[in-house]
Amino acid sequence: MDTPRIVIDERRLDTNIEDMAVMARKAGVALRPHIKSHKLPQVAHKQLAAGACGITVAKLGEAEVMAEHGIKDIFLANEVMGSEKFERLSALARRIRLAVGVDSLEGAQALAEGIRAHTGLDVLIEVDSGLRRCGVEPGREVVSLAQEISRLENLHLRGIFTHAGHSYGAADRAELEKIALAEGKVMVESARELRQAGIDIEVVSVGATPTVAISAFTPGVTEIRPGNYVFYDAMQLALGVIPSIEYCSLRVYSTVISHPAPKRWVLDAGSKALSLDKGAHGHSGVEGHGIIIGQPKLRIVRLSEEHGVAEGESMLQVGDVVEIVPNHACTVVNLFDEVEVWQGLQRQVWEVAARGKSR
Amino acid sequence: MDTPRIVIDERRLDTNIEDMAVMARKAGVALRPHIKSHKLPQVAHKQLAAGACGITVAKLGEAEVMAEHGIKDIFLANEVMGSEKFERLSALARRIRLAVGVDSLEGAQALAEGIRAHTGLDVLIEVDSGLRRCGVEPGREVVSLAQEISRLENLHLRGIFTHAGHSYGAADRAELEKIALAEGKVMVESARELRQAGIDIEVVSVGATPTVAISAFTPGVTEIRPGNYVFYDAMQLALGVIPSIEYCSLRVYSTVISHPAPKRWVLDAGSKALSLDKGAHGHSGVEGHGIIIGQPKLRIVRLSEEHGVAEGESMLQVGDVVEIVPNHACTVVNLFDEVEVWQGLQRQVWEVAARGKSR
Repeated sequence: MDTPRIVIDERRLDTNIEDMAVMARKAGVALRPHIKSHKLPQVAHKQLAAGACGITVAKLGEAEVMAEHGIKDIFLANEVMGSEKFERLSALARRIRLAVGVDSLEGAQALAEGIRAHTGLDVLIEVDSGLRRCGVEPGREVVSLAQEISRLENLHLRGIFTHAGHSYGAADRAELEKIALAEGKVMVESARELRQAGIDIEVVSVGATPTVAISAFTPGVTEIRPGNYVFYDAMQLALGVIPSIEYCSLRVYSTVISHPAPKRWVLDAGSKALSLDKGAHGHSGVEGHGIIIGQPKLRIVRLSEEHGVAEGESMLQVGDVVEIVPNHACTVVNLFDEVEVWQGLQRQVWEVAARGKSR
Repeated sequence: MDTPRIVIDERRLDTNIEDMAVMARKAGVALRPHIKSHKLPQVAHKQLAAGACGITVAKLGEAEVMAEHGIKDIFLANEVMGSEKFERLSALARRIRLAVGVDSLEGAQALAEGIRAHTGLDVLIEVDSGLRRCGVEPGREVVSLAQEISRLENLHLRGIFTHAGHSYGAADRAELEKIALAEGKVMVESARELRQAGIDIEVVSVGATPTVAISAFTPGVTEIRPGNYVFYDAMQLALGVIPSIEYCSLRVYSTVISHPAPKRWVLDAGSKALSLDKGAHGHSGVEGHGIIIGQPKLRIVRLSEEHGVAEGESMLQVGDVVEIVPNHACTVVNLFDEVEVWQGLQRQVWEVAARGKSR
C-alpha cells in the first residue's frame, strides 16, 4: 500500500452520522452539519439522507462545490466580504436556498449593496458566545444589529448563530459542559430579547462537536451545526467527547522509512499530511502529532514537511505501515486530493471535491 | 480582489534565484535547489536557467510531476519504501537521471530488490548532521553503509548528503553559524573517511536556506540544496537569514471580514491558508502567524481553519485587504491550487502542479 494516504471506515462513518441524527431528533432540533470537516459531497449526501435539513459551509467556494453536487440548502456560517464574492453569492442564491452570516452594520450594508441585483438574501447574525473571534455580543448588540438589518431592503433576517469553538480549549469535562450550557443560554436569551423588541426569527443555531450533545437540549435552540463528528480524531478523544478511539473513522496510513536510532523511527507522513494542529482552537490536550494504532509507547514528537519523527519503544521496522489517528481530521482531509473508503472488502476512492476552497 | 490568494512578485523571485546562483558559483559548488518550497515547474525552470545542475525533491510524486514538465535530473532527498514506490522509481529512472537517499542496510536492500527489473539506480547516503531525523551518524557508520551498498548489484553510490534543518531552531546568529560550520565539517570528514576506505564519491551535498551561505564555502562540499530562498518568509527574517522583509517574494492577500471589538480584527485567512507553522523544524522565533505589511502594531494571534484573529492597534476596517508574509512559505504554497505572479503590470496564474504530492 502506497503511503501516506487517508483511509476511511465507511461503516464507522455511517454510524457516526446516524448517531448524531438520532441525537438531534431526540433533542427536537434541526441538524445542519458543517461540511468543512470532510469536503466530500458523498458524505454530505449521507448526512442529508440521515435527516439533515441542509448543510453548513465555511467558505463560498465550498458552497459552490456542494451546490454543483446537488445540495440545495446551504448556510455559509461566516462573514463574506468583497465585490467578487458578492457577485458569486448572488449567482448562487439564484440556484439554491442560501443564507450567510453577518456581524456588523458595515458588513450588512456592504452585503446588501453588493447583492443589489439579486432579489434578496437570508442572513443570520453571528453571536460571540465566548470564542472571541467573529460575532456581536449577546443581548442588546444582537437586537441593535437586527433592527438595522430590518431597514436594509434586500436582506432577510432568518436567525442567529454561534460557534462555541473555545470548547476545544476546555481543561476538563466540567469546563466543557459549562461552555456548552452557556452557549445555549446566551443564544436563547438573545432570541427572547429579539422577540421582546418585536423581531421574530426562525432559527437559533448552535454547534461544535464537543458541545452539541448538551447545547442541543437547551429549550429554544432550533438547529445544530456539528462538523467533526463524522470522523472524530485524537483531539475529540483527549477532550472526552468520545469514549474510545474506535469511534474515529479516519486514519492516515504511513510507512516507516528510517529507523536510525534505537528509540527513533521516521514516518513518511509530515505536516503536509498530518497538519500541525494540536486542536481546533488552541490546545485540546493531545500528546504528539496523532496516535499510532497499536503502539502505546510510541509518540510522534516532531513533524517536518514530509517526515514524522516517532520516539519511544516499538518493534517497528523499516518498511512497516502504521495507522495514525490524526489530531485534527478537518485539516488533514484538506491536504489530500482523495480519500480511500472501505466498506467490508469494497474499496472506493473519493475526490476531496471542496479541498482548498478557501475563497 | 478575491481573497485569500497567494501573490508572488516575479522580479523579487528572479532576484532571489539569481542571488543564490551567484553565491553557488562564488563558492564553486553545484546548486541543486529543493522544489518542495514552490512546487511550481515554472520556478524550477527559472532555477535551471540560472545555472542549477538539477533539482531536489522530497517525494516521488513531486519528482514525477517535475519530470512530466521536462526536468531531466532529479535527486529525491529522502528514503523511499514500499513496492508500489519501487515500481514508480524504476519507471522514472528509465526516463531521467535520478538519485535517491538511503540511510540503512535494510532500506538499501529493499530498494535494490524492489528495482531489480531496472538496470541500476544512483543513491546518496543520508548523514545526520544534528537534525536527529533520518540519516546515519557521520564517519564510521557512513563508511560501513557505503561498503554494504557497494556489494548490492544494482545500486551505485553517487555521494552523501545532509540537511541541517536544526538550524531553524537556532537561538541566534552565532548558533546558526556554528550549525552551518559543523554541517560542512562532518560531511567533508565523512567523505575523507570514505576515500581512506577506498570508496570514491562524486557528491558531498549540504543545504538548508539558513546555513547554505556558510556551508557552501567548506572546502570539499560539492553541492548545495536550498529550497525556501526563492520566497523567504517571516521565519527566515526572524532567523536573520535576510536583512529585510523586502526580500520576501510571496504574500498572502486577505480581507478583513469582521472587526467585532476595538482591538480585534478577523481575517479570511486561517490555518487552511497560512498553515500553523512557527518554523520548519521547531520554533524559529517568529511572533504570531505571519507579518501583516504596514501594520506594525497588529499581530495575528490565533488561526482557526478559515479565520485569522489579529489583535493590537490599527485603522483597518471591514472590507480592507491586507498583505501577509507567512511564517513558512513552503507549507503555504502546498495549501493553494494556484498562485498569482506579477511582473510590473503583467499578471499570470500558475497552477501549483506538485501540490499535495506526498506520495
